Amino acid sequence: MKQLFAEVITIGDELLFGQITDTNTQWISAELSKIGIRVIRKSSVGDDEQEILTILKEAESRADLIVITGGLGPTKDDITKNTLAKYFNSTLVLNEIALQDLTEFFKKRGRDLTEINRQQAFLPDKCTMIRNRMGTAPGMWFYKDNKVFVSMPGVPFEMEEMMRSDLLERIKTHFVTPVIYHKVIRTIGIGESFLAEKIESWEDNLPAHIKLAYLPSIAEVKLRLTAIGDVQEILEKEVGQEVEKLKSIAGNYIYGYDDEEFEKVIGGILIRHNKKVGFAESCTGGFLSYSITKIPGASSYFAGSIVAYENDVKINQLGVKPQTLEEFGAVSEQTVKEMARGVRERLKTDIGIATSGIAGPSGGTPDKPVGTIWIAFDDGVNVLTRKLQISWSREVNIKWTAMAALNLIRTTLDKID
Amino acid sequence: MKQLFAEVITIGDELLFGQITDTNTQWISAELSKIGIRVIRKSSVGDDEQEILTILKEAESRADLIVITGGLGPTKDDITKNTLAKYFNSTLVLNEIALQDLTEFFKKRGRDLTEINRQQAFLPDKCTMIRNRMGTAPGMWFYKDNKVFVSMPGVPFEMEEMMRSDLLERIKTHFVTPVIYHKVIRTIGIGESFLAEKIESWEDNLPAHIKLAYLPSIAEVKLRLTAIGDVQEILEKEVGQEVEKLKSIAGNYIYGYDDEEFEKVIGGILIRHNKKVGFAESCTGGFLSYSITKIPGASSYFAGSIVAYENDVKINQLGVKPQTLEEFGAVSEQTVKEMARGVRERLKTDIGIATSGIAGPSGGTPDKPVGTIWIAFDDGVNVLTRKLQISWSREVNIKWTAMAALNLIRTTLDKID
Repeated sequence: MKQLFAEVITIGDELLFGQITDTNTQWISAELSKIGIRVIRKSSVGDDEQEILTILKEAESRADLIVITGGLGPTKDDITKNTLAKYFNSTLVLNEIALQDLTEFFKKRGRDLTEINRQQAFLPDKCTMIRNRMGTAPGMWFYKDNKVFVSMPGVPFEMEEMMRSDLLERIKTHFVTPVIYHKVIRTIGIGESFLAEKIESWEDNLPAHIKLAYLPSIAEVKLRLTAIGDVQEILEKEVGQEVEKLKSIAGNYIYGYDDEEFEKVIGGILIRHNKKVGFAESCTGGFLSYSITKIPGASSYFAGSIVAYENDVKINQLGVKPQTLEEFGAVSEQTVKEMARGVRERLKTDIGIATSGIAGPSGGTPDKPVGTIWIAFDDGVNVLTRKLQISWSREVNIKWTAMAALNLIRTTLDKID
Repeated sequence: MKQLFAEVITIGDELLFGQITDTNTQWISAELSKIGIRVIRKSSVGDDEQEILTILKEAESRADLIVITGGLGPTKDDITKNTLAKYFNSTLVLNEIALQDLTEFFKKRGRDLTEINRQQAFLPDKCTMIRNRMGTAPGMWFYKDNKVFVSMPGVPFEMEEMMRSDLLERIKTHFVTPVIYHKVIRTIGIGESFLAEKIESWEDNLPAHIKLAYLPSIAEVKLRLTAIGDVQEILEKEVGQEVEKLKSIAGNYIYGYDDEEFEKVIGGILIRHNKKVGFAESCTGGFLSYSITKIPGASSYFAGSIVAYENDVKINQLGVKPQTLEEFGAVSEQTVKEMARGVRERLKTDIGIATSGIAGPSGGTPDKPVGTIWIAFDDGVNVLTRKLQISWSREVNIKWTAMAALNLIRTTLDKID
């Protein structure tokens, strides 16, 4: 089977001034890689007609698929659409569906369509429209001499939704792609190098057509197995066997597979055990609650939280004893214990989880340096605490703590060592 | 003065699979931009000789300066150095200083120089070496037909140190660079297209050497003015005058400039007015609290929050009346009002802010579709409410709501219409 090549082009002056991070190319490359398309080049150019025309021509000479993002906004500096029209000798015509989508978009927000936005419904007559469910600029699909050009908005969530709900399928249907089977095994509670050591001999014995990649992120490590072959079912079976072997070596760290988000898995565990949880947050400052509520349907297992940043709030809203704070400090095992019990009792939940620590960048002492964090779990029967000693940025420390705190729910309810 | 153009090329297969984020190009672009060199294109290619030769040729035809990172490691897959030697018809010769640096590098770590690392001291005879103080691969500076090519390692801290301690000065000395001045104006509370309409005539009357770009993100739009000229002070003054004009047209939406984060600006306003705030969060589920606590030092103006996901928590922890919930529902003006007052009273803060809405994706009704969200501000004197009707993803709806809620602090305390 012929290997398919793609190029990703991001358009926008802002990308060249170094003021914003381009996350789109990485995201797109990863998605194309999953369906067996190899990205051979990624480029960014400014909002400049000549530059765009040149790069389109270059990309066309090398790749089967050219994916473009950016420059589709309604303002004057956005020229991608007109430049594509020029490149394909195409004229702009009103697309009725696009106009309908746009009108609907503004109506939903209680506003009339402005003339400047109405212009966004005009598309080159040689393209097929790709609907934008999250914004105002429609995407475009061009087909020319066996090459496919796709243009999408640069706003990441608009682009991602467009790819997921429409484009990836369209690409798979249009091109005949080889069979690539991915399986992601999601672990928490063990660092990348420790995990690598633990599973070394398993990794060394993987069949040649199954490749392993480590994808570490905050507090977790994902392992991705990629198998290439001809028959989906065979690949699935082979990968499944390897996963079983892995489970016997590192099963305690595995919390889920593929797209199963950690927070969703935790929700599932709470539902399975029929438990409701409440949080008492100090150093995580609301992030722990946000983590669990970002999953739709969290109300069936999450009652609420007390974000107790001030000591007075810890005392009055959570019932932490003033003498505990006095004697041991807010960042202490005793305090998080009382916070966890306090939130459980006040919010009448089955489980209370608490966090208190020094997220940084300042506020540390010789005894309790930045990154000293206590977390607690209390369900009335089991009372568990953990001390974390981490040293990332404030943001990462907060996110790490939230993951570790949620992991207490998993290990305790599912009785994992 | 002639505008100088640069291209940034990053080399490495790993960049194309979407597994790692390329932060080098953004960093380099920002640094070059500061010394008046305009990056006109950024590209990534794999560790492939033909691909590299092609892109070097393309870049040479367009740019004055070509900055390359990656592919300088000691292993077989790293081919940048040999490819550059080929491109410049150059042969590899032992560079004594590079050898000394390498020997020193290994000695410091208590190791002998291996043969594979000794190879790194061989450099094309047509280049000047750039010393690497943080790693083993030296950088290279090529000069050909008025064009400069620079090759550096891909490891970010090695590359950054090389640029800072040596290259940027060398570039400034070699080229006579123009002055580029950027100013970012940050707005909130108005959509991109509405803002564009409002400031259209101002935009049309900008001097030719000052360019405007719209950078929209969740709930805010940043405007970036870029001025090119010879004298920093003149550009600053000219841009300053344009900003003043803009303020008279759209000043109410401007919350800050350049790197000023919205949440930090809100913190500054609270400090300036000497006010403490507490949040009562339903649909934002903790994100509002997280937004404000992600800024170090938030404890001086943020006391805490009640995340009241369940109605019982709204009643017991915030004092919302059961009959209010019964009669108007949790997503209503009456409920958010009571929530805002409740959190202010219970946490003894100056200001209470509340959110309640349907973040989606489900849970909507004909009367209150997904994206119907109420927010409230209560400082004991002013009680304000706003209804949002938005329709992004759950995640964006939540973030949008948090921004809108924080904006109530700005508009009320600073008396902005």
